[in-house]
Amino acid sequence: MRTGVCYFPEHWPSEEWERDIAAMADAGLEYVRMAEFSWGVLEPERGEFDFGWLDEAIELVGDHGMEAVLCTPTATPPKWLVDERPSIRQEEPDGTVRQHGSRRHYCFNSTAYREETARIVERVTERYADSPHVAGWQTDNEFGCHRTVRCYCDDCAEAFRTWLADRYGDIDRLNEAWGNAFWSQQYGSFEEVDPPGPTPAEHHPSRLLAYARFASDSVVEYNRLQADLIREADPNWFVTHNFMGRFPTLNAYDVSADLDRVAWDSYPTGFVQDRYDGEASPDQLRAGDPDQVGMDHDLYRSALDRPFWVMEQQPGDVNWPPHCPQPGEGAMRLWAHHAAAHGADAVLYFRWRRCLEGQEQYHAGLRKADGSPDRGYADAARASEEFAALDSADHVDAPVAVVFDYDSLWALDAQPHAPEFDYWALQEAFYGAVRGRGVQVDVVPPSADLSGYAAVVAPALHLVTEDLADRLTDYVAGGGEVLFGPRTGVKDAENKLRPTSQPGPLTDLVGAAVDQHESLPRRLETAVRRADGPTDDGSDADDGAAPSASFRTWAEWLDPDAAEVRYTYEVDGPADGRPAVVANAVGDGRVTYCGVWPDPDLADALASALLGRAGIRYADRLPDGVRVGYRGGHTWVTNFTGDRLRLPGIDPDSLAVDDADRDAVDAAGDGGEDS
Amino acid sequence: MRTGVCYFPEHWPSEEWERDIAAMADAGLEYVRMAEFSWGVLEPERGEFDFGWLDEAIELVGDHGMEAVLCTPTATPPKWLVDERPSIRQEEPDGTVRQHGSRRHYCFNSTAYREETARIVERVTERYADSPHVAGWQTDNEFGCHRTVRCYCDDCAEAFRTWLADRYGDIDRLNEAWGNAFWSQQYGSFEEVDPPGPTPAEHHPSRLLAYARFASDSVVEYNRLQADLIREADPNWFVTHNFMGRFPTLNAYDVSADLDRVAWDSYPTGFVQDRYDGEASPDQLRAGDPDQVGMDHDLYRSALDRPFWVMEQQPGDVNWPPHCPQPGEGAMRLWAHHAAAHGADAVLYFRWRRCLEGQEQYHAGLRKADGSPDRGYADAARASEEFAALDSADHVDAPVAVVFDYDSLWALDAQPHAPEFDYWALQEAFYGAVRGRGVQVDVVPPSADLSGYAAVVAPALHLVTEDLADRLTDYVAGGGEVLFGPRTGVKDAENKLRPTSQPGPLTDLVGAAVDQHESLPRRLETAVRRADGPTDDGSDADDGAAPSASFRTWAEWLDPDAAEVRYTYEVDGPADGRPAVVANAVGDGRVTYCGVWPDPDLADALASALLGRAGIRYADRLPDGVRVGYRGGHTWVTNFTGDRLRLPGIDPDSLAVDDADRDAVDAAGDGGEDS
Amino acid sequence: MRTGVCYFPEHWPSEEWERDIAAMADAGLEYVRMAEFSWGVLEPERGEFDFGWLDEAIELVGDHGMEAVLCTPTATPPKWLVDERPSIRQEEPDGTVRQHGSRRHYCFNSTAYREETARIVERVTERYADSPHVAGWQTDNEFGCHRTVRCYCDDCAEAFRTWLADRYGDIDRLNEAWGNAFWSQQYGSFEEVDPPGPTPAEHHPSRLLAYARFASDSVVEYNRLQADLIREADPNWFVTHNFMGRFPTLNAYDVSADLDRVAWDSYPTGFVQDRYDGEASPDQLRAGDPDQVGMDHDLYRSALDRPFWVMEQQPGDVNWPPHCPQPGEGAMRLWAHHAAAHGADAVLYFRWRRCLEGQEQYHAGLRKADGSPDRGYADAARASEEFAALDSADHVDAPVAVVFDYDSLWALDAQPHAPEFDYWALQEAFYGAVRGRGVQVDVVPPSADLSGYAAVVAPALHLVTEDLADRLTDYVAGGGEVLFGPRTGVKDAENKLRPTSQPGPLTDLVGAAVDQHESLPRRLETAVRRADGPTDDGSDADDGAAPSASFRTWAEWLDPDAAEVRYTYEVDGPADGRPAVVANAVGDGRVTYCGVWPDPDLADALASALLGRAGIRYADRLPDGVRVGYRGGHTWVTNFTGDRLRLPGIDPDSLAVDDADRDAVDAAGDGGEDS
Ligand SMILES: [Zn+2]
Ligand SMILES: [Zn+2]
Ligand SMILES: [Zn+2]
Repeated sequence: MRTGVCYFPEHWPSEEWERDIAAMADAGLEYVRMAEFSWGVLEPERGEFDFGWLDEAIELVGDHGMEAVLCTPTATPPKWLVDERPSIRQEEPDGTVRQHGSRRHYCFNSTAYREETARIVERVTERYADSPHVAGWQTDNEFGCHRTVRCYCDDCAEAFRTWLADRYGDIDRLNEAWGNAFWSQQYGSFEEVDPPGPTPAEHHPSRLLAYARFASDSVVEYNRLQADLIREADPNWFVTHNFMGRFPTLNAYDVSADLDRVAWDSYPTGFVQDRYDGEASPDQLRAGDPDQVGMDHDLYRSALDRPFWVMEQQPGDVNWPPHCPQPGEGAMRLWAHHAAAHGADAVLYFRWRRCLEGQEQYHAGLRKADGSPDRGYADAARASEEFAALDSADHVDAPVAVVFDYDSLWALDAQPHAPEFDYWALQEAFYGAVRGRGVQVDVVPPSADLSGYAAVVAPALHLVTEDLADRLTDYVAGGGEVLFGPRTGVKDAENKLRPTSQPGPLTDLVGAAVDQHESLPRRLETAVRRADGPTDDGSDADDGAAPSASFRTWAEWLDPDAAEVRYTYEVDGPADGRPAVVANAVGDGRVTYCGVWPDPDLADALASALLGRAGIRYADRLPDGVRVGYRGGHTWVTNFTGDRLRLPGIDPDSLAVDDADRDAVDAAGDGGEDS
Repeated sequence: MRTGVCYFPEHWPSEEWERDIAAMADAGLEYVRMAEFSWGVLEPERGEFDFGWLDEAIELVGDHGMEAVLCTPTATPPKWLVDERPSIRQEEPDGTVRQHGSRRHYCFNSTAYREETARIVERVTERYADSPHVAGWQTDNEFGCHRTVRCYCDDCAEAFRTWLADRYGDIDRLNEAWGNAFWSQQYGSFEEVDPPGPTPAEHHPSRLLAYARFASDSVVEYNRLQADLIREADPNWFVTHNFMGRFPTLNAYDVSADLDRVAWDSYPTGFVQDRYDGEASPDQLRAGDPDQVGMDHDLYRSALDRPFWVMEQQPGDVNWPPHCPQPGEGAMRLWAHHAAAHGADAVLYFRWRRCLEGQEQYHAGLRKADGSPDRGYADAARASEEFAALDSADHVDAPVAVVFDYDSLWALDAQPHAPEFDYWALQEAFYGAVRGRGVQVDVVPPSADLSGYAAVVAPALHLVTEDLADRLTDYVAGGGEVLFGPRTGVKDAENKLRPTSQPGPLTDLVGAAVDQHESLPRRLETAVRRADGPTDDGSDADDGAAPSASFRTWAEWLDPDAAEVRYTYEVDGPADGRPAVVANAVGDGRVTYCGVWPDPDLADALASALLGRAGIRYADRLPDGVRVGYRGGHTWVTNFTGDRLRLPGIDPDSLAVDDADRDAVDAAGDGGEDS
Repeated sequence: MRTGVCYFPEHWPSEEWERDIAAMADAGLEYVRMAEFSWGVLEPERGEFDFGWLDEAIELVGDHGMEAVLCTPTATPPKWLVDERPSIRQEEPDGTVRQHGSRRHYCFNSTAYREETARIVERVTERYADSPHVAGWQTDNEFGCHRTVRCYCDDCAEAFRTWLADRYGDIDRLNEAWGNAFWSQQYGSFEEVDPPGPTPAEHHPSRLLAYARFASDSVVEYNRLQADLIREADPNWFVTHNFMGRFPTLNAYDVSADLDRVAWDSYPTGFVQDRYDGEASPDQLRAGDPDQVGMDHDLYRSALDRPFWVMEQQPGDVNWPPHCPQPGEGAMRLWAHHAAAHGADAVLYFRWRRCLEGQEQYHAGLRKADGSPDRGYADAARASEEFAALDSADHVDAPVAVVFDYDSLWALDAQPHAPEFDYWALQEAFYGAVRGRGVQVDVVPPSADLSGYAAVVAPALHLVTEDLADRLTDYVAGGGEVLFGPRTGVKDAENKLRPTSQPGPLTDLVGAAVDQHESLPRRLETAVRRADGPTDDGSDADDGAAPSASFRTWAEWLDPDAAEVRYTYEVDGPADGRPAVVANAVGDGRVTYCGVWPDPDLADALASALLGRAGIRYADRLPDGVRVGYRGGHTWVTNFTGDRLRLPGIDPDSLAVDDADRDAVDAAGDGGEDS
């Protein structure tokens, strides 16, 4: 487990580099990421390259016993290039062209930009192919940030048509697959298909899904172009990319297939402000939410089933959320440990020093603008020291898989049918319930091999093929335990309904069908009540949960066939008394289908019942903001609240979810102590 | 009174048609609407027509003793046509062109599209001119839906100039009529006048009104083009169009003049979510609001003073409102009876079967996606059975006319002067008060002959010509009773103020002038107090209403001349003590002018006083959500609430507003019983 | 002190002019502003001029002993001109062109429009060069209203490049000054620099500041073009311009340098609705806020250190705010007195008569549409009479300067880092605290000579040059008292951070550095607590303020060096106990640095301490809405509340902040009496 930092020597007088880099080494940092966004410095005019500054900075990094991680500079094509080849710019659906003046103003499908990308990547990688101090490369930066995955330019239109022709072969198959007889949306040829532009009414959901897939695939292809060139220059380098948190438009599993290592950028107090479901609490504003951050850790770890990196770790206050409150005391250390517990092998802080110029002046670094230590520096140094004992190769064992499906996300995003229906938030509702019982989770795609997991949670597996249904059925029949959430099995692979009841090909497995669904404004949301009587697995009988529990946003009225009823609606409305949650036994396993978006108490009851049935040892319910992780024989208790951790109602032994030695680490906002 | 359903055979395998159509007949349905949006199926390539599927479907409908209602497919020009003649597309004020990919992407003034429209309408109508199973035609679908009445393309610019030249003759008359000396807005010729595009500040209100009128007239002209062609093909057919609910940009009276029958599309639980003033209550989310729906019933019935059709009746959950809660039990039957009570001759449910593909997958049908009965099916079948006793030709008698004026709506929309000033909501405030006393209402244009009405309510007759003022004065002088609302008589026909005090040419009739007006944010709204002492008609003395009543949004300070004061302001502000409501006697009739937007208690007091003066028998005040209707000797008590109907404070006899036999029908959310 | 009115004879039949103008004179009005927006009447076709109407109106004004103030008509180029030279139109960042149909649809940098401007201004000024009845000219109208200061057209792009080349000389200096190495934003030449258009992420803050300065300078240049032509025609005329209230994009100090007299347009009940921080109270909705209006009075008076005019005084209800409540009784008189107290030499009401046509029909005048007196007429007449005693040349003495810096405003607007961070609102927080102690204020630019002020308040002097820091240090060293607010001294002149701690070059003066800053959402805002113990100046010891006081939005953690701590944070968060306000003694003066946005109690405590230290006599804290002003030996107590003024807790003598005779004027909403 190592630490590092992101550094921009080009922003500082060269006479300060030695001091800066020495201070990094002093703090125990081992990696220095550089050259991101540096195209304008590397090639001030076409063909005129200046590598001297970077040569020198890499040398200094090596001199201090650290390694450089370099970035291709493609996230910021310079103005001369944009002016010379204006077609590289992204276009919005209404034709607005995104101009130079910030970053990410290029189109992934631009043929001109792919040429320029190849040219610059070849040039910078060949330059450092022999360097003993360069460990590997990050491609570009945060693909898709600032809503840039989906572009609507002419190059994209062409590429989309090619992508469609490859996928569907002939236009009649596309018309059939999407169902274009509806509203006279048939196409006569692939040439007739445009990117989805401004229309009077909503778009065809199958067309939207196709465009979402195409756009994500375009990034995959663009990343592969870079990865191949990097490996060509020096096969010993690792290739990585820094993904974003809770990022909805890019399939990270697909991009990761071309990487040696997955990295992502973690900004806990920013994420709770700008991509969180609900208003952040004071504690969350100071330290973020461990489940929100943890689910990304688990997703990116699971992408290659391999330790990941945090390429950018929040170092203090940041500039881009609505507000920039100061993180709680020790938060920068807490986040590093939390990442380690979730399987990180390196945590690099972003950035070394508060920048004097440009868009990120309100983004802290480990050092202040004047070069003196900022709040994060001591945290980072302490974390580096504490990490010395950890082996970076340790695997994180997770008995539970949460199935995360970008296709389902995109399909539901095209048809949410409730303004507050957010796929990610629904995933977090189930994910957090498992994590709240101290149990570790892999976040895997539907294509993953599930056989190694004792239990599987699929919160909203919206698109289900026959093949996937078969695999899930085999899993359960072989003794697996599955918990499904609402809106599962609704669509086929092309975002069309099937001429059957829901959950479609999973109906036999679930032992029930969905009679009706409804989305509910807040004033209609109410509760479900636990069904009386014994259950075949005893799962609900002894969970101590209250007999009533609330839900939100979505409700399905279930018609059980083979399944038993677990919860029924307790509402002032036509659903009253109808089954809301059912359970079914198939072969050696069992499956529960939850037809509502559960509030935390219900999610916990369902999760703990699942864990119990699966024979997974689980803890008493942890307080909000407190989570447990274990890896390589160490246990972390991470406290994201401002309260000193007492865990009054929790038996310390119940936290020992692993047999390893316990090495509790606590880094609470106000310096809570070990428990 | 008949029932029917909308069917899209082209969305289903032909081997299922027989089963589907037989099930329709089984439910007692008598009309099947088809061919809407079917251009792409009817003419997959230019000049290549395929009528076989529709021939077969019509035959099957006839075989089962039902009649087909066909639709011209012009709401969805196919992609090949859009690509061939791109000028048909609508344009937004900022130049954004609305593209293919949903529906209604054509311009009503496009010369190219009028040619194509004539071509396809001729072709499909000639095809079925001899069919014994086709009862009539619906032109297009929901003209203007998705904000498509007003387009800003070059064809529209040309058409607007022609429309202006026709209306004003020469440009100086236009400059004079609008008052273009203001801010140097004079035009030198009609060629200089553009559609209203993006401007730094707000537009000239007279120009906006002209554009609203022109745009509505364009639809009238476009509909007439179709209606004429349909009648040419077979003069025995009826021609109808399905209007939308609470639809503000199209003058339905004008379009209706070219129709044989008016139809509209009723979605009660959608309307309370997306076009309702205020947050919908749980009851309204389950069954809609009877006054919101009822006012459209009455408007569309009054348009031709003839029974109307509900061409699309909500069948269950629908896809387009923010949320899609399930309707209450029996709601689909309730709505059909409510329509019948208001004068419908047919109710067609939309749609037969939940569609597997495209934009409306989240829209229920009478049958589920798998073809089995959905919640609405039993409701529809029961309504069909119950309707057997009703004669479809029965007239609805209404002693009260509410004057609804699209020109006033457009003028107020251009100058609301309070963000929450909504013409339709103000109309509903007065309309609901009359309906809340069990009294039936016609909703008529200002041009209507009022002589048959015992009372007239004009909630905001903003544009008043001398001629209209004379007609209203004659009506009152002849014994009519009138209730005016605020903002009446403010403008001339061109949306200009008159150089007189308000209500302009109605001042003598009202017997008072408006000294001041003000719009009020919520925290300034307060109350009016009933004036003490006897009144000349005793109207307020015995109404039992509280002496104080609240108002909202708008307040006028009245200066009575001949009129008596009925209410004065009771506020903490400069209006305190000033007259707010006055009454005047003219000839044999009387007129009340209400200078505020009344809250329900005040609206009820004013309405009941009006009914009393007019000698109209009225009921005790009905509970919210409960309404009474009578037609052809039958009385309906419709309960839109989730509560069983007890009507505790209401004497059953008081509901007998008609001398006919009572045939109370109740279809409450939870199965309330007859009362 | 004189009064006047704005009149549009071209909107009325000429036979009514005599009556109208006579009624003006009857009310004691002495100025009549005319010809604004009249281009279309003056030149209906190119080269065809019609001055007859204006000749006649001026003559009538003179006949009645009044003087005309004329306006150049350039705010509304007529349609024929726009059609002939379409390049004059403004363009939005996304390319949308702003069209004819309202006003201000021209670009300040349009070369075509500058030609046309010169042509029309020469023509109209030469026409009246000999008139004995024309006192002076207003250039255009409300430069920049409707967000028109910043245009993005091709002419602007060219002009921006020239402006940059003038400012920076060569492109490397620009790159260095802005810090364009960040995100590869370097330019190779001035030709590469565009106006800031649509980009994926936020813009470079230095580029935004440059564009804001350039755009403001463009208006300065455009105004100078007009002012020069007016003076050329008749050097005896005064030249003025009517600025807007609380107007953020135009540097009024810079424009004023080319004027003889500054004027502005005051709409108190509009401003509290559409440009006020927070929801307006009922009193504010009826009479506006005296500090909001007062700060503009003081700013525009300070611009030339000379009595100003209110060129448009609200006459009653107005059309453009969200709501148009009626002003309280006497409000139109109150505002005139308030303006007089703040140094106005003339108050002209806008407008004479409610207009029958166009966009301002819902804007009251002193007369109603029918020509009879409206609510404001009696107020205006009474004010005219009362003003007879006042000498218009009287100077307003202000012992305190508030430093208002448009560059800081623009810099903070580019990087607010809290959605609710509004520069103007923060200025008002400090300004209102000084005014709340009955003390008069000049609102001056950073370049002002401060030597005459006993105390200086700089609420957020964000951009601080070394030179400015030296001047402030000299001021304090020489005995001056300074109060700084948060976010002071953060940036250099180009909107870049300095490689030092904040407040940058003011750090020695302040005797403390900013360790951290944070912006806070509402749920994290809390309080500061007064430091215990004696202070060197005794300033806080006897102020009677509560020991705790709340703050909002922004917090800085201070590290005092030479300074003493005055307040520390009292929060549940990492700032707890850290210094929030410090004070330092330098030479003969002292400086206080307040690191938070103070709520009113804290602002009052800081302001009264400042006044005490500076030896400025100040009043007991005045109630909200009540303010005191004095000028030329008269004292005004202006009451903007609806309550009769009792001032129960205030010793009348404490109001005597001047030794002059007291001539208290009260014009409360409900007719409160003198106190
Ligand atoms: Zn593209
Ligand atoms: Zn058009
Ligand atoms: Zn421009």
